[in-house]
Amino acid sequence: MKWVESVPNFSEGRRKEVVEAIVQMAREVEKVWVLDWSMDHDHNRSVVTLVGEPGQVVEALFRMVRKAMELIDLRNHSGEHPRMGATDVIPLIPLRNIDYAECDQYAKQLGERIASELSIPVYFYEKSASSVDRMDLSKIRKGEFEGFSAKIVKPGWKPDFGPSAVHPSAGVVAVGVREFLIAFNINLGTQNVEIANKISRVIRNRSGGFRYVKAMGIALKEKGIVQVSINMTNFKKSSLHHVFEMVQLEAQRYGVPVVGSEIVGLTPLQALANTTEYFLRLDDFDTSRVIEYKLLDILEKE
Amino acid sequence: MKWVESVPNFSEGRRKEVVEAIVQMAREVEKVWVLDWSMDHDHNRSVVTLVGEPGQVVEALFRMVRKAMELIDLRNHSGEHPRMGATDVIPLIPLRNIDYAECDQYAKQLGERIASELSIPVYFYEKSASSVDRMDLSKIRKGEFEGFSAKIVKPGWKPDFGPSAVHPSAGVVAVGVREFLIAFNINLGTQNVEIANKISRVIRNRSGGFRYVKAMGIALKEKGIVQVSINMTNFKKSSLHHVFEMVQLEAQRYGVPVVGSEIVGLTPLQALANTTEYFLRLDDFDTSRVIEYKLLDILEKE
Repeated sequence: MKWVESVPNFSEGRRKEVVEAIVQMAREVEKVWVLDWSMDHDHNRSVVTLVGEPGQVVEALFRMVRKAMELIDLRNHSGEHPRMGATDVIPLIPLRNIDYAECDQYAKQLGERIASELSIPVYFYEKSASSVDRMDLSKIRKGEFEGFSAKIVKPGWKPDFGPSAVHPSAGVVAVGVREFLIAFNINLGTQNVEIANKISRVIRNRSGGFRYVKAMGIALKEKGIVQVSINMTNFKKSSLHHVFEMVQLEAQRYGVPVVGSEIVGLTPLQALANTTEYFLRLDDFDTSRVIEYKLLDILEKE
Repeated sequence: MKWVESVPNFSEGRRKEVVEAIVQMAREVEKVWVLDWSMDHDHNRSVVTLVGEPGQVVEALFRMVRKAMELIDLRNHSGEHPRMGATDVIPLIPLRNIDYAECDQYAKQLGERIASELSIPVYFYEKSASSVDRMDLSKIRKGEFEGFSAKIVKPGWKPDFGPSAVHPSAGVVAVGVREFLIAFNINLGTQNVEIANKISRVIRNRSGGFRYVKAMGIALKEKGIVQVSINMTNFKKSSLHHVFEMVQLEAQRYGVPVVGSEIVGLTPLQALANTTEYFLRLDDFDTSRVIEYKLLDILEKE
């Protein structure tokens, strides 16, 4: 069986019945499973995590987008998080037995249906982008819903699929294949957030650090410590262990202890295999050496 | 679905057709899968790794024992490895959704069938042992096939199930529930095997080290290095990372580098989760945070 994951973002984080109605759309599709969903009141935004067979995941996502279009009107929406659509962004992540190219075909299929059946303009981003300008989601999103009617008619911003007019209530949507994103936070035993900021600048791509790392310093006031808050956008190329070792070295340089860390949400087995291989100095180790990986192989073939 | 693993050992490592016939018995049983099997000529012994639904694994093992009884005659058997039966030992390991106590019921079921239907005496060992004396497999096996007719009538050595007489050609068999065993070897950049021996004595239970660790030094002549060869008999209590850290500290003490390591065969996901949690200093991490673990949950419920 082929597996993809998707974590669509919807511009509704306050009306629970709306988010539940959207999630319900995914639950009704065979071979699709909702692993998690959460709402954020301040951001007025919700995130759903689903996995399943690629074609079925596309079907589930399409129904969710249609439901979000019915129930969310961006003309009456405000929140802290920048957004441009009722369904704002739909990442597709290849999990097992599928590569980027094949996953991208499903992204295109989904985009085409959204554009033609719902008249919502679609932009492809990341690995699905049609040009370098569109790889970065924040560049697509710039201007947000309110500014998009002016942006969509500008040179270079014609949608990849769909009308060159923003949907009046549902805006536009971004769809794209990307790598699994790991949110990895490292806590430092100091109240000085500037140290976390300095370390962030050493490890993040933007400031000259690891290519697939985004990072910033945050004060965790209640705990009286600070955090290097990290997004690992490709853990296969910029690895958890190298980032951790670098943060630890830099923390030493400032005489500050690493007091703990956390991985938010789910992690692929490969990240654990890579970390174990590195720290135990294993030769010749990979995910196929893990018993649960074998069990998954067995059940997939049943 | 409940999962157990078994790695039965058979006293045949030279006649491939015999081992294949035994393995074939397992392949014919529904909900049982053979992950691996291997023969050792010098030891004249083979090991099969199978996983599956507990009741079905018992059925498969029973058929393998019966086939081994038909095809192996210990009166004509010699090899380096000590042995007492055509099927020598049958470990049962709980993998998923089953605890030791329930797994032990299956071990008892299997033992009873072997004793009553095949008239082979059965000894339960490790977590299935009926007395402290029988926990250690090497104590049960002592005397081997040739000495067992004298041993079986001695006080304290009455079989747990079956006749008080060794089966003329198939001997006796040990059955027991045990923890997953990880074979973990750490290589040192020296030709001095005495250093590997000294480090082994620090980490192994027998010499005062970690309770669930067996270890010895070995010279890897072709590679010009030495190895601390380790059996981790309970990685949940004596952990890979603590053993590795201790070996590394001791190697430093002798001015010798750790040049690599290996895990032989398969490893449970939990060992990777524990190692990752330790080295990345993660708070609040366990196997349920791994995406493949979720996928396995999903398919098990289908």
